Amino acid sequence: MTGALVAARRDFDIVGLLVLAMMTGLGGGVIRDVLLGVAPPVNVASWERLLTATLAAALVFWQHDRVSRREPFIMVLDAVGLATFCVTGAIAALDHEIAPATGVLLGVITAIGGGVVRDVLSGRTPVVFSGELYAIPAVVGATLTVVLESFDPLGVLYVIPAVLCFGLRLVSMRRGWSAPGARSRQ
Amino acid sequence: MTGALVAARRDFDIVGLLVLAMMTGLGGGVIRDVLLGVAPPVNVASWERLLTATLAAALVFWQHDRVSRREPFIMVLDAVGLATFCVTGAIAALDHEIAPATGVLLGVITAIGGGVVRDVLSGRTPVVFSGELYAIPAVVGATLTVVLESFDPLGVLYVIPAVLCFGLRLVSMRRGWSAPGARSRQ
Amino acid sequence: MTGALVAARRDFDIVGLLVLAMMTGLGGGVIRDVLLGVAPPVNVASWERLLTATLAAALVFWQHDRVSRREPFIMVLDAVGLATFCVTGAIAALDHEIAPATGVLLGVITAIGGGVVRDVLSGRTPVVFSGELYAIPAVVGATLTVVLESFDPLGVLYVIPAVLCFGLRLVSMRRGWSAPGARSRQ
Repeated sequence: MTGALVAARRDFDIVGLLVLAMMTGLGGGVIRDVLLGVAPPVNVASWERLLTATLAAALVFWQHDRVSRREPFIMVLDAVGLATFCVTGAIAALDHEIAPATGVLLGVITAIGGGVVRDVLSGRTPVVFSGELYAIPAVVGATLTVVLESFDPLGVLYVIPAVLCFGLRLVSMRRGWSAPGARSRQ
Repeated sequence: MTGALVAARRDFDIVGLLVLAMMTGLGGGVIRDVLLGVAPPVNVASWERLLTATLAAALVFWQHDRVSRREPFIMVLDAVGLATFCVTGAIAALDHEIAPATGVLLGVITAIGGGVVRDVLSGRTPVVFSGELYAIPAVVGATLTVVLESFDPLGVLYVIPAVLCFGLRLVSMRRGWSAPGARSRQ
Repeated sequence: MTGALVAARRDFDIVGLLVLAMMTGLGGGVIRDVLLGVAPPVNVASWERLLTATLAAALVFWQHDRVSRREPFIMVLDAVGLATFCVTGAIAALDHEIAPATGVLLGVITAIGGGVVRDVLSGRTPVVFSGELYAIPAVVGATLTVVLESFDPLGVLYVIPAVLCFGLRLVSMRRGWSAPGARSRQ
């Protein structure tokens, strides 16, 4: 969704819009699956997910103005995605007998990978690298998920890291928090 | 070939030229194979294909001026590649028991993936995203291939989607057709 | 290390710094493993390597000024990495029954892949494509490794291509050598 919006703002055509929408929504999971050796990646193999991304792109294509005016709402949707992906990404990774650190890494990649690809393809510096607090909530969520997993909990408990990640992202958007840089500290 | 030309125009050195030539010619197929779990990817494992890409780069390196003057001819070669790759890509994908939508997607990735990587590496917005009608012919070709495949046809019939894709690309180059954008419609 | 420095100079935040440090140090090996079908890639699965990259990023984060003043020393470290990676990359690839040309290619990818990803993510044209003699020493080292390997040598002999690659890179840095381009020749 944010992918399609970025594409529309750059005057990309419908192809660019569709590719960016797909990469943003599904790209993180695809990178995770490639690293885990899951082939074909779930996000590519499932036509339901391809269709969802296509519908999001179509919505922006036909109703660009209206969608654009609701950007705050879309940013909240995006935070929901971030929270969901960092938890489900870490869980999917932990199914594969890997080190805990790798689980955290793959959870974070699932959550922010799509956005990074979107930014690289549209020719701008990835927003997760500079400015907003975007990756940190995902790191927190994925780490807590990996910790929780070692206690072999009821599935429902995974709601905790997801809500934590979502809340952290939301608060930081509202307050304009940003992550510290190397330069600014000196 | 277009990869090596882009590199030459950006004053890249021989390394950049070779890398871009390889990525443009072979990159789409490599991405497809990685997503399908074919390792090592056919394009990387076959030294004949690596040699072909190297020769294309060498030709541009030694004869940059001459090749450059024949650009219309190279664009036609490029359209042949687009048509071939979208069909062969879709066929290769369908060997792997995947959903039809995934087959179309992978056919298109095979056809346009190399060009997208070329553009990202050389620091420009991917041309398939804005402007020319480039991906749409590949979508048409890959879709028709997937449809055809379900009738289990004689191999020779796959010429139809290839010719269709090639013709569509050629006509759109000549007429200057472009894909619609989200903004221009409003 | 160079990844973290580039990030610090672009005023990326701590996330960008960490991602770039990881991609630069580990990215080449990850690409090689993905192409070879090793999943999860060794560099992702090993928490020791993730920790090393994290420490490098932390060092730049806390001591940016001091590290920056020692840049010549870091460039030598970087050359050591280049030499090590082109040899170990080629050896790792040759374990997988591939053509010799593929072995050379994967050795070079291991050595320069991380730097290319670093440059693409930080929005600049990959430095290996234009200017310094960076990839050529890696090509020389990887080729010699593949040649040596066919004689089934003592492991210690692999020091030769590594030293050769390291020396070539060092001399070319000192003398300002650069690879030839297509345009400048005309």
